[in-house]
Formats: sequence, structure tokens, C-alpha cells
Amino acid sequence: MRIVLDAMGGDYAPPVAVEGGVWAAREYGIEVILVGREEEVRRELDKHDTSGLSLPIVHASQVIEMEEYPAAAVKAKKDSSMVVGMKLVKHGEADAFVSAGNSGGVMAAALFHLGRIRGIKRPALSTIYPTTLGLCFLLDVGANTDCKPEYLLQFAYMGAVYAERVLGIPNPRVGIVSNGEEETKGSILVQEAHQLLKKSGLNFIGNVEGKDIPAGMADVVVTDGFTGNVIAKLSEGLATALLGIIKEEVKRNPLATLGALLSKPAFDNVKRRLDYAEFGGAPLLGVDGVVIVAHGRSNAKAIKNAVRVAKQAVEGEMLTAIKEGLQAGRFKTWQESAASKNGSSSPVWGPSPH
Amino acid sequence: MRIVLDAMGGDYAPPVAVEGGVWAAREYGIEVILVGREEEVRRELDKHDTSGLSLPIVHASQVIEMEEYPAAAVKAKKDSSMVVGMKLVKHGEADAFVSAGNSGGVMAAALFHLGRIRGIKRPALSTIYPTTLGLCFLLDVGANTDCKPEYLLQFAYMGAVYAERVLGIPNPRVGIVSNGEEETKGSILVQEAHQLLKKSGLNFIGNVEGKDIPAGMADVVVTDGFTGNVIAKLSEGLATALLGIIKEEVKRNPLATLGALLSKPAFDNVKRRLDYAEFGGAPLLGVDGVVIVAHGRSNAKAIKNAVRVAKQAVEGEMLTAIKEGLQAGRFKTWQESAASKNGSSSPVWGPSPH
Repeated sequence: MRIVLDAMGGDYAPPVAVEGGVWAAREYGIEVILVGREEEVRRELDKHDTSGLSLPIVHASQVIEMEEYPAAAVKAKKDSSMVVGMKLVKHGEADAFVSAGNSGGVMAAALFHLGRIRGIKRPALSTIYPTTLGLCFLLDVGANTDCKPEYLLQFAYMGAVYAERVLGIPNPRVGIVSNGEEETKGSILVQEAHQLLKKSGLNFIGNVEGKDIPAGMADVVVTDGFTGNVIAKLSEGLATALLGIIKEEVKRNPLATLGALLSKPAFDNVKRRLDYAEFGGAPLLGVDGVVIVAHGRSNAKAIKNAVRVAKQAVEGEMLTAIKEGLQAGRFKTWQESAASKNGSSSPVWGPSPH
Repeated sequence: MRIVLDAMGGDYAPPVAVEGGVWAAREYGIEVILVGREEEVRRELDKHDTSGLSLPIVHASQVIEMEEYPAAAVKAKKDSSMVVGMKLVKHGEADAFVSAGNSGGVMAAALFHLGRIRGIKRPALSTIYPTTLGLCFLLDVGANTDCKPEYLLQFAYMGAVYAERVLGIPNPRVGIVSNGEEETKGSILVQEAHQLLKKSGLNFIGNVEGKDIPAGMADVVVTDGFTGNVIAKLSEGLATALLGIIKEEVKRNPLATLGALLSKPAFDNVKRRLDYAEFGGAPLLGVDGVVIVAHGRSNAKAIKNAVRVAKQAVEGEMLTAIKEGLQAGRFKTWQESAASKNGSSSPVWGPSPH
């Protein structure tokens, strides 16, 4: 297996990206193709023991920066690590692409050079969300701010395939974010998507409210990219804020400070359970290739784990599973159903193939 | 001052509602009118020392339950505590209405019996949101799942008046929830509302992302009722989940358990900072009366504080301030601006009157 790693992507690239790539090549025994400015990448690579590892470098002279406007940058920078890396996947020279760079840039490069899977209307960005019970898979977290009901249905389907094939969750419970449990609750978008999901053949558990997400009520949580982005960023911010408030209150009281010292191993476990680095990255779903987006602040461990996620998606034949679902006519059927708007209430996807 | 308290509203009514009402009458030296089933309310009242306090009971034979469909319930139950209480406000026999009952019911009763403030398109439910710096005022949290840009502008204006007049925050910083900092980020709704807010004369600080809310970046956080509901419930659920994870990890380790005992006063302070009971309640804004909605799980302290919030809203002349803004033609001007869609970029509200 050959996985392309954007050596220039992320806040601490190239050193941390290269370190993560070396780690992944060693731990998973796969080829990690480092794409970026050859001289810089080589210099970083030389700092590591790479004997016996397969870590070819593919030169790309340009870098798409975090603050660049994605579509314009991808068009202008034809020799950027993202574009060059994506083309390797397109031409079958690699099985997957991993980047901790500008996520909009990754999406634009994937759309331009890999294209969408035939039948998929919109790609979705996703994230792994830690819950009290473990984790859930949340999408879309920012690719599509304004959605149509059928987009949400496709997100649900792709999310369920990913949860099953890559995260190893059998028959994943799919929920849609809403402002109330009852199916009559929600925006017009959510109410319409709810009806499509009921007929989808997925293990649809209905609406999930904000409080249900961290409680782990659903394995796959579907929402539009606006709401999903707010959920993901709010959760990260709130956890940080809460731990900050705890620290502040503990520091005010000497006995509590001593107590906190004793509790430190427990708090380290809490942090580990919430640590995005453990999850590595999450896929850009709907494009015709395995593309994994890692957090911009990824450390080497997160990069290493993002490569693992790519490997699992390739091994789990995620793309094939999505395409087979499309070919089996299940997407087609619900598209017709969505077009007629008041289709029958019989299951249009039939029983889940899993 | 006379404040109506829905003695039947909330998960622990009537005992807790009555207890909170007695507490409020004593602490604030005001008249608290208890509306509900006279016999039940009298029985609860007799458990307290009410000498010297003004706590009249107004009989209402019906109760709107938590799970009832609001509009239908308000129409059907004309002798419910919510309807009877709201009418007291309408007829000038009371200055404000407070309830911990079905918030949709409170809204429906307020709309039917008090009506909207002339010129206000939609009322908004609000909440006080604890931040690392103190608190912010978040609206709409559920009254309007699908919004238009001008609704968000009105929410912002009413929220700013409330923050200044009742929460005592001079020239409050107003932000709009979005999925990115730049003004080009956001759904179509948010992008259009952003442009209206820029010209509003409010102290508009632009987009706030999910992570910025708990960090306290804005004093007034404006969003549609769908997103606001998700934010409010997610935050409550996430804080609970996080404290649960901490507890779980602490329990696994005897030294950490001892440490947690020593840290307990600090954790009690953390809980106090996050405790909704301290804030009491938040207003239903846009209706023609002071209406305060308290959390369904309100304890007596929360009820007492909700009455305090109502008192502050009356003393701060919140309604007059909103109406004066409307009469001064500032709403009218931006409505015209919204109608023409591409109005001039000059400020249409003029300088803030504050």
C-alpha cells in the first residue's frame, strides 16, 4: 500500500509531518510518499532513522497556505504539494492522500483532480467526536453551509459506510441533529431530511439533540456543514474553557492544588480520551479517492494516526462500498423519491446490505 | 412592583415554584402573585413563614404540561396558569410574568395574549451562557428554526438592549454565529444578516465561531433558533459529559480519589460558575410584556433568581427601550434597507443611543 502524505501541510510542517510519516511507515509497514519541497523534506528525513522503510519523496515546489482562498490557490498553484499529491492518487500511483493543511484547499484539490463519485451531489468533511461512550462520526463539519435534504441523506449513507468499514461499528446508529426529539421538530431542511432517512434502510434512530451528541446516542451524526462546524468548534472550545475554569479554581486553593496533583493521572486519562491526536484524521467523503484531513494543529502522533486511518479506509474498501451502494440503485431510488417529494413510505433502499 | 409567578410551571411545581416565590418576595420586597390551583398553592404556601410578605394567589384550574403541543394547549386551556397569568400582565394588574413551565407554551400564551411589540417580526427565546470571562447572552435558542436576515438583526437589537439594561453590560459586543471569522463565511442567511448588522449602529464585532462563544468573545451572541438550540443543549450536555468522564477517571485511581476530595471546594466553585440556577431565567424577547422563562429543572433558588431577572427587566425599562428604538425609526430604516436588498452602506441606525 502506498499513501501520499502532504509533507507541507499543517501548522508544524514540514518537521512534524515528516516525523509522523516516518513513524507511520515503520509502525504500519507501508510506503509513505512524502510530497513537498524536496530539499526541505530531505533535510527533515535525514534527522530520522529510515533504514528499511519506504519513504520516497515527490517534489512539489509550492505550498497552499492556511489562510489562502482554497479554490483560487488550487488553480494558481499547480505545483503545490496538494495538487501534486492528489494527482498521484488520480493516476493510481498511490492509494490515498493525507494532509493536515488548509482543509478547504484539500477539498478543492480533491474536487478538481479526483472529482466527485458519480451520483454524489456534495462531498462532506467529517470529524471523529469523542463521547462518554467512546466516539461518534460527525459530518458535514464545514464543506456545505447550505444543504438540501438529499445531501444530508447522502452524508448519512457515506457516514454509515465509513463507520462500519473503517471505524468497525456494525450497523451504526444514524441520527440527524435537530432542536427536539420529535420528528416534527427541526428546520424545514431537517424535517425533510428526516423523512428521507426514515425510508433509507439505514439504522436511523431519528433526531438527536445537542445534548445527545456527547452522550453518544448515535454512531453517525448527520448535519449541514454550518451546524456541524459550529458543533465541532464549540465542543473543542467548551472543553478547553471548562478545563481552564477548573484549573483557575484549583489554583485559588492550596489544598485543591495538592488534590489536583494527586488527581493528575486521572486528568491525563481524561485528556487522552478527548485528544484528537488519537483519532488522527477524518475523511473527505464523496470524492473519488481516499482523502484524509488531519487537524491543522496535528502533532507527529496525529499525523501517524491519520495515515493509519487512510490505510484502514483503503483496506475496508470504503470507496467500493459507497460506489456499490450507488450502483445497486439505492441512491437512484431515493433520488427519485426525493424528486417526487411525496413518495411511498416503503423502504426505498431495501434492507441494509451489511 | 407585582410579578406573576406560574406556580404550576416546572418539573418540581408547585412546591419548588412556591418556595422560590416566597424567597423572592422576601429577598426583593416585592409582590409575587402566585397563579395556579388555589388549594394546592395554598397548601404549599402554608408550609412557609409568609408574615409581612405580599403573596396573593390567583386561581387557575388548568395546567399546561411539559409534553403538550404549545399552541393547541394554550387555545384549549383558557383557565391554565399560563393564560391566566399572562392576562394579568396584559390588563396591567402585574408588571411581569415568570414561568419554569413548557417554554413553547409560555411563548404561545404570550403571543396570543400579549402579542408582539409592533414592528417586531418574531419573538426570540434567550439564555444566559456561562463563559470563561463571565457570561454572554445567547438568542434565539429555539423559537424560530427557520429565520430571515432581518429577524437576526432584530434579535441582535433586542439582545443588546437586554444586555445593557438588565445585565448591566455597557455597549455590549454583538457577534453572529458562523463557521468562520471572515464575513464571507457562513450560510446565505448569516452572510446577509452580517451585512445588516454591520450597518446597524450596534457594537457589532462580526462573526463568532463555535469556540469563541465559551471563550467570551461576545456579550450578545445572535443566531437562528435551530443553531441556538443546538448550541445551548450541546453545551449543557458536553459539560455534563466532561464532568462525568472526569469523575469516572478519578474513581479508577485511589490517589486521584483522595485528590478529588481535597479539590472538592474548587469543583464546587466550578459548578457554581456553570449553574443555571444562579442566572434564574432569560427573557422571551419581542412580545409586548416582560416574560421570563426559567429552566424546567429549576430549583427554588433558580425560581427566586428568575423573579429577580423579571424585576430587573421592569426596572431597566427594557420594553420601553425596545419600543423607543422602534419609534426612533431605526428598525424602519433597516427594514427599508433590507427590502431594497442593496441599500447604501451608510449606517442606517445612526450612532448607538447608549
